[in-house]
Amino acid sequence: MSGDDNLRGYRGFTRKKLEEAGVKIWSVVRVINPDATYEGILLPRSELGDENHVVLKLKTGYNIGVRIKEETVIKEIGYSPGHYALPEKKVEFKPGMPLVTLIGTGGTVASRLDYRTGAVIPAFTPQELFSAVPELEDICNLETVSLFEIFSEDMKPECWVQIAERVAKEINKGADGVIVAHGTDTMHFTSAALSFMLKDLSVPVVLVGSQRSSDRPSSDAAINLISSAIVASRSDIAEVVVCMHGSSNDDYNLIHRGTRVRKMHTSRRDAFRTLGDIPLGLVANGTIRMLRDDYRRRSGHRNVTVDHKIDPRVVLLYTYPGMQPDLIEHVVEAGYHGIVLAGTGLGHCPKTIIPQIEGAIKEGVAVAMTSQCLYGFVGMNVYERGRDLLKIGVIPCGNMLPETAYVKLIYVLGHTKDANEVREMMTSNMCGEITSRELYNAYTILQGGLENL
Amino acid sequence: MSGDDNLRGYRGFTRKKLEEAGVKIWSVVRVINPDATYEGILLPRSELGDENHVVLKLKTGYNIGVRIKEETVIKEIGYSPGHYALPEKKVEFKPGMPLVTLIGTGGTVASRLDYRTGAVIPAFTPQELFSAVPELEDICNLETVSLFEIFSEDMKPECWVQIAERVAKEINKGADGVIVAHGTDTMHFTSAALSFMLKDLSVPVVLVGSQRSSDRPSSDAAINLISSAIVASRSDIAEVVVCMHGSSNDDYNLIHRGTRVRKMHTSRRDAFRTLGDIPLGLVANGTIRMLRDDYRRRSGHRNVTVDHKIDPRVVLLYTYPGMQPDLIEHVVEAGYHGIVLAGTGLGHCPKTIIPQIEGAIKEGVAVAMTSQCLYGFVGMNVYERGRDLLKIGVIPCGNMLPETAYVKLIYVLGHTKDANEVREMMTSNMCGEITSRELYNAYTILQGGLENL
Repeated sequence: MSGDDNLRGYRGFTRKKLEEAGVKIWSVVRVINPDATYEGILLPRSELGDENHVVLKLKTGYNIGVRIKEETVIKEIGYSPGHYALPEKKVEFKPGMPLVTLIGTGGTVASRLDYRTGAVIPAFTPQELFSAVPELEDICNLETVSLFEIFSEDMKPECWVQIAERVAKEINKGADGVIVAHGTDTMHFTSAALSFMLKDLSVPVVLVGSQRSSDRPSSDAAINLISSAIVASRSDIAEVVVCMHGSSNDDYNLIHRGTRVRKMHTSRRDAFRTLGDIPLGLVANGTIRMLRDDYRRRSGHRNVTVDHKIDPRVVLLYTYPGMQPDLIEHVVEAGYHGIVLAGTGLGHCPKTIIPQIEGAIKEGVAVAMTSQCLYGFVGMNVYERGRDLLKIGVIPCGNMLPETAYVKLIYVLGHTKDANEVREMMTSNMCGEITSRELYNAYTILQGGLENL
Repeated sequence: MSGDDNLRGYRGFTRKKLEEAGVKIWSVVRVINPDATYEGILLPRSELGDENHVVLKLKTGYNIGVRIKEETVIKEIGYSPGHYALPEKKVEFKPGMPLVTLIGTGGTVASRLDYRTGAVIPAFTPQELFSAVPELEDICNLETVSLFEIFSEDMKPECWVQIAERVAKEINKGADGVIVAHGTDTMHFTSAALSFMLKDLSVPVVLVGSQRSSDRPSSDAAINLISSAIVASRSDIAEVVVCMHGSSNDDYNLIHRGTRVRKMHTSRRDAFRTLGDIPLGLVANGTIRMLRDDYRRRSGHRNVTVDHKIDPRVVLLYTYPGMQPDLIEHVVEAGYHGIVLAGTGLGHCPKTIIPQIEGAIKEGVAVAMTSQCLYGFVGMNVYERGRDLLKIGVIPCGNMLPETAYVKLIYVLGHTKDANEVREMMTSNMCGEITSRELYNAYTILQGGLENL
């Protein structure tokens, strides 16, 4: 959402028509279609709108979408600039209420429709957020930090370090909980990274985002934010968690451990799932309900540190039938230090690439095996292929998710290049990324809804 | 399972002890532990056994496992070779009963314990199968074909063609249904490939395997085989399907469309799931229950053909934060013709690799986008990144699974290298690989069990 685009949200054919007519946002326009004529203020649109409509605020105060066709005529008849700002609530520090710091990393955390102009206004400062999501005011004192503006898909290992360092700083300064607002695409990579990097956590660190842009009526942004604020301020969890919708309704949010969560749907609000395990808890009706008790507890200390040593020269490769050895050869030649394979089944790969994997390991490249099934443990002692891979030095990753293993190998290789130490660290559970067993209902039951918990 | 290993199934420490003692399978041995001594015939073990026990058939007829320790002494006191063959049932052609051809591609289809010797005997010929799984005899006439012996993880696009051609041949010769016995690791790749290659199918083609080796008590092999035979012989489906356990009990098997199924668990019997859609049907208590009616129907013709034109120079790459452009560059330099990306979220990738993707497309490489979320549609018009990727020519694959898209691109590039034709074929639904919408309960409900259907 660029603020200086004077046709914000319009694109394609409709944008061309508007440009030809020489109009801009806040122009008072007349739109003449063969069957009807409309007059009103041209409103900015969300990025998510289609290409075939303009949105007008009529004199009656209603906003409508008008279809633009080849034969539509658009004329400017005036200009009525909108007041593009949220009414800011005056924020007073509420003594006795916990302090939560919200760290923005990119994208819109929340937003609100200006009913007068129809404009969608991003909200980020505490004042704006309290105004956009008034429920927050009864939950916590809020501070906000805009760390950077990066699309989730452009996050890099170096960004994880920056976020971790800022989180630690805010906690050590006094925050009773930290919310990291993050795009959803790679949120689970970042939550895994923060899990490994943040040491001696004493308060909750909650990653949150929204699957539907915060200017859409179906947005999950407000409820995700409220639930995250509840977890950050009131829960006794001192871990990195993801807090997102648990169902496609607005009835509850799940609290996922940062190393066992994965985005499993492109668009649904309940896209995030804990895989092969049970979520830590949920938030429903403003109340936290823990589903398990094997989590690190909140404490009063302010000595959180960041272990920021990383080596990002790692690739994540899924295997497939017909996979050729040149990919592995290239990775070695290009000087990567680690390969996380997402193999098939119990941790297998085509035999055609085994000599190259062996070569990579001999060159000092760490090769770790996860399963592209996503659910279940690798079992590399079961079949010949798995045993062959173990024999040449492939590291079996238990039931670690491929994405988490990728993040962990980056972290581990930042600490040691010694093959035995890498193996020892990769196969030892650090923060819930490898569980000792998979609960029976972690595959089936916890997909359904609240009634199954 | 190699038949000429005279310590079949033994490995590690125990194997070493047995070798040192100079004993072999069928030796009559005395095993002396500090606390007890046992005498019996040394039995072959399944590949799945642990490293710490030998299995003896005692004089009483019972088989027991005896723990081997450092201090254990093993002595040979005789030899009693087992009769290593299944009693074969005489098979007579049953007029009026459908004819099913089972095509073996590798691994053990079924097996049976020889209670006299304790040996696990693979069953493959109709006689052996009827003997191992007697229920089959009441379902169909059976013919078996051993096409090749390839581990599922070693399947290649060329194997898919061979399987398809044999399936067509068997149908055109008169089979009323075909079962393809296949390892589970890459079964969903093969089912997708057969779906694209087999044209004008007139009978069911059912892929089946087992998640637990057929010599284990918890094996799903027999029930999967019975259910597949029911589908192959009695169903009115003329499509390629996967028929595997629907729950971790033995209560029902699901019938998955070949292009929408994925192995989602490393070890559970109900590892296969239809993603983003509802399975075609199920088999419970010997009865088929269809769950939908939008499938191709059985017909009498014998003119099934194989469209075997493929181009296997395709890679499947998952994207991740920190992904470097050299991987894409390498793929172009190495002369691949197609790249299927499993991007994040709605079909995004890091901006760092976009110039290389654009370069690849300019070089004539087809680049198709799926989502690593696995559930849901790519939506590349929603955000800037998606639109940028569309602009440079990336092909959006709807809700096609990454694995199915990989197989499809191999098939499509076998037919045309013309960018527009490739795009047209990739974005058009051929056999259920792209659906028009995702049913609401295709993400949640169908995970639970029969009661949710």
